[in-house]
Amino acid sequence: MTLADPQAVAVVQALAERGQTLATAESLTGGLIGAAVTSVPGASAVYLGGLITYATDLKARLGGVPTDLLAANGPVSAKTAAAMAAGVRRATGADWGVAATGVAGPDPQDGHLPGEVWLGLAQPGGAVRTLRVDAAGDRQAVRSAAVAAALGLLEDALTAES
Amino acid sequence: MTLADPQAVAVVQALAERGQTLATAESLTGGLIGAAVTSVPGASAVYLGGLITYATDLKARLGGVPTDLLAANGPVSAKTAAAMAAGVRRATGADWGVAATGVAGPDPQDGHLPGEVWLGLAQPGGAVRTLRVDAAGDRQAVRSAAVAAALGLLEDALTAES
Repeated sequence: MTLADPQAVAVVQALAERGQTLATAESLTGGLIGAAVTSVPGASAVYLGGLITYATDLKARLGGVPTDLLAANGPVSAKTAAAMAAGVRRATGADWGVAATGVAGPDPQDGHLPGEVWLGLAQPGGAVRTLRVDAAGDRQAVRSAAVAAALGLLEDALTAES
Repeated sequence: MTLADPQAVAVVQALAERGQTLATAESLTGGLIGAAVTSVPGASAVYLGGLITYATDLKARLGGVPTDLLAANGPVSAKTAAAMAAGVRRATGADWGVAATGVAGPDPQDGHLPGEVWLGLAQPGGAVRTLRVDAAGDRQAVRSAAVAAALGLLEDALTAES
């Protein structure tokens, strides 16, 4: 990648216009969302950082996801995505928290097929929305689709909310 | 990226052979090291996750870097890289912690020129080593060089240590 991610450019620009900050909580994407955002020169004005909670245990230990919620819903679920987004927003003090959890493949996980991705978006004020994405293709395609969907969710919210 | 990163494949394989785990703490790379490691199918056996401490404040708040160390040395320094690596190893319970901090550019930061990168590697038992890398090229080239150097440092240590 020699150019900044165009979706990330739009997100960084929209956040800068609002004077707001962002944090990320990533599982299957393993840091790709943070990497996309920080591909943009000047991202440091709006991006604080985030958590890569790849192991399920770290979603609780670092990510602030309650262990009983994790046990009841599993790591690949709307409730876990929502708790990851809210957790990283709280842990970092950012205005927005975006989270991605799911199955990159090639193997299924806990009864979920590769391509099942859940996104969480914690907004200023604390409201959280979630989105399910069913991505096609191999491991890298699923991960790329998750990044694009997460940035798209954020961009839509930044454009819609005032 | 449609294939797993070859350096990351070697690191994941070496960790799996040892039955050891890894965590990452990233500043200028913004998640790219975690993304490279998790590009490898089966990475979940050895990679726990990590921290993206992009804002200097998060290096202390999430990353366990003492605020007086940060104030005395700045975020772009050997001591901060070492503290980030030790901090993420401690926070996650991983056997190995690898950290990268530096200036991606295009602008200098706190008197450091773009391309100055510091890596930290916390090993099983807790010993920490650091390495300075001077990377050439634009923002994305510096970030890619930092990822390659971090994975190389880890690979060397995994091959040398017994």
